[in-house]
Amino acid sequence: MNSPTISTESFTCNGRHYHPGPHPIVVICVDGCADEYLSTSMAQGVMPHLLSLTKNGYRGLARGALPSFTNVNNASIATGLSPREHGISGNFFLDPDTEEEIMMNSSKYLWKETLLSHAAQSGRKVGMVTAKEKLRDILSHQLEGIAFSSEKAKEAKLDTHGIENVESLIGEPAPEIYSADASLYVLKAGVALIREGLADFLYLSLTDYMQHKFCPWEEESLTFHQNIDEQIGLLLELGAKIGITADHGMNSKTQPDGSANVIFLESWIQDQLGIQTRVICPITDPYVVHHGALGSLVMVHIEEESDIPRIQEKIFQLDGITEVYTRSEAAHRLELPEERIGDLVILSGRDTVIGRTEKDHDLSHVAKGLRSHGGRYEEMVPFIFSFPLNSTYLQKAVGDPRNFDVFEFTCNGEDS
Amino acid sequence: MNSPTISTESFTCNGRHYHPGPHPIVVICVDGCADEYLSTSMAQGVMPHLLSLTKNGYRGLARGALPSFTNVNNASIATGLSPREHGISGNFFLDPDTEEEIMMNSSKYLWKETLLSHAAQSGRKVGMVTAKEKLRDILSHQLEGIAFSSEKAKEAKLDTHGIENVESLIGEPAPEIYSADASLYVLKAGVALIREGLADFLYLSLTDYMQHKFCPWEEESLTFHQNIDEQIGLLLELGAKIGITADHGMNSKTQPDGSANVIFLESWIQDQLGIQTRVICPITDPYVVHHGALGSLVMVHIEEESDIPRIQEKIFQLDGITEVYTRSEAAHRLELPEERIGDLVILSGRDTVIGRTEKDHDLSHVAKGLRSHGGRYEEMVPFIFSFPLNSTYLQKAVGDPRNFDVFEFTCNGEDS
Repeated sequence: MNSPTISTESFTCNGRHYHPGPHPIVVICVDGCADEYLSTSMAQGVMPHLLSLTKNGYRGLARGALPSFTNVNNASIATGLSPREHGISGNFFLDPDTEEEIMMNSSKYLWKETLLSHAAQSGRKVGMVTAKEKLRDILSHQLEGIAFSSEKAKEAKLDTHGIENVESLIGEPAPEIYSADASLYVLKAGVALIREGLADFLYLSLTDYMQHKFCPWEEESLTFHQNIDEQIGLLLELGAKIGITADHGMNSKTQPDGSANVIFLESWIQDQLGIQTRVICPITDPYVVHHGALGSLVMVHIEEESDIPRIQEKIFQLDGITEVYTRSEAAHRLELPEERIGDLVILSGRDTVIGRTEKDHDLSHVAKGLRSHGGRYEEMVPFIFSFPLNSTYLQKAVGDPRNFDVFEFTCNGEDS
Repeated sequence: MNSPTISTESFTCNGRHYHPGPHPIVVICVDGCADEYLSTSMAQGVMPHLLSLTKNGYRGLARGALPSFTNVNNASIATGLSPREHGISGNFFLDPDTEEEIMMNSSKYLWKETLLSHAAQSGRKVGMVTAKEKLRDILSHQLEGIAFSSEKAKEAKLDTHGIENVESLIGEPAPEIYSADASLYVLKAGVALIREGLADFLYLSLTDYMQHKFCPWEEESLTFHQNIDEQIGLLLELGAKIGITADHGMNSKTQPDGSANVIFLESWIQDQLGIQTRVICPITDPYVVHHGALGSLVMVHIEEESDIPRIQEKIFQLDGITEVYTRSEAAHRLELPEERIGDLVILSGRDTVIGRTEKDHDLSHVAKGLRSHGGRYEEMVPFIFSFPLNSTYLQKAVGDPRNFDVFEFTCNGEDS
């Protein structure tokens, strides 16, 4: 049952004030949840709890951070800041000093503190559960609370993760990462943590394996969302105030014959202009089965500054490309940290991804159809609350709310 | 009852082939229908027919044409072409020869034939009903069939509109244009035309007065959508195959205090750079109550070509502005007719509109809160069919379908 000792102390982090009430606060980031997944699942009747939650609460859309990638947006949600402020610009960046490609899977790349750590300092029992271990590393920065991933649930130890014997707490063995269960386990962990009085302020961040692999109307997707819905029902039963958003949407990136619709940009620039550039695909991560390291935003690093304008102009003409920015333009317009992006930042369309060269991507992982994200067409995400928003937050919700406002809305958005 | 003599002859228009079956084909353009209107209305239980239609058919999203304005997108839907090809780039453009601002409310500005006229030639009984008269003018070009607007329903005559005594056919007096009824009347007309065997190939294009005035969860919006749903139910009962899309979405364009969030761009350029430009707001139309001529895309006409780069650079820095294109860039990237746009084409964000100078806009019309459209954040629209899509069209639907594919999908998208 709910612990009777839930702290209602307000706290501040990165300039925002949070006023959580005397009930469990649960924010769920449904990785890769394009709004169509929810619309289709609700129409098919497999998400009755979400339907009733939205009926009695609020369902709208919010704008995520670009690039529409997982680490970027999870860091934004956990800090309440844009990437320009928190520093995580993708999964990878090219270190300008060493010219090395560096994976940003550790909290040492995060410039700011998380609101989770401040919630814990204020007296909340914080529980952060992610599907992927890479995210736990980044987001558990200075957190005095529980933090583990379903990927490495077995390895959770009291002194490093704030919890142990996770499998027996949840009553199920930890799932493998390429599965629906990797996400469901995160939600089940959230339910168990509240039920056992171990946490009252939760961030539950799922993984998008299922969304990468299935369209909204496919049976596997409907079953997945039905299972998500069941856990949402349990969280509601436990009295949680719930905020739901996503890190990014998801679109098919395929040609009419079903094959991946890829622009190999480094090769193309070489062919067209005879210039060797270095294209960084910041979606690249250890989970290659998801997307073959192909997304809809890449960074182009160019040796000679004088080459930048003509490369920029040439790329802009390419079908499938939607936006082309110089470093300073991207920093300003896309809210990116200038030192962790390319000389050019390139975005592609709803059905198009950008790669490096053919040999850099193993398309066998996505032979059944590539679904991916990273660009403008995966920027808008669900923004859902289990309670009616008060007038202040309803006004914010109809403006230009961001997915990384979700904790503020969940803590402050209801009239007490 | 359905006429037993429905033609099933295929026809071709603007390079596309249409194969309508032996049932009424109905395409509905729900003006200003951001997807959130449908999600909220369905969650509140007021659109049971749409819910069951999407359950048994298909509900997804499609990309509209930019600018996300009514005439532009209706012309695209009726021709199956982008604005670059059909020539309608907004409600207004600046004639480069005469320097006059010209309202494009006549078919003489439409460069291509409509698929409606070709459907009629193939033997279909075509019925086109619009809410606004301006659209009837544009889209009835060379149409041998029925075409009238609810705005001027009383004036419909057999020799000019293909129909007369519209009010007695529908059984209700024609509504005033600033009303929910202006849209509902269009749907009622569609029901009556099919029921009386007068039409079997329909384009029903509503008006967005309600969407300009109400958020998805407001009572007035829910009632409006309930009434739309009732008519959809009647169309389904009559055996219609239905395709539903929108010309554009709709967002609140307000500051936190509820006042309109406007950049007066002509004044701003004058203040910042001392250059007198001419800003055209192509959303401008005779229906000023809707939006006060404020939308999220404007054209900037610049006397001295040499001034263009620094104006472009300056505007790009302005908060609330999302995209800035030169004429040739916009023609290419936004698919616009080069001769009917500005030297610069400027788009603004989800919560921001762009105006000319303060005195050019009467904000009293939008004192209760401005909701408008025109930019990138009103580009994605619902894309709904009353039947399951066959594998060919399902594959197209998961790519980058356009709202102006809607007739092709409705005619060809079902396995016979």
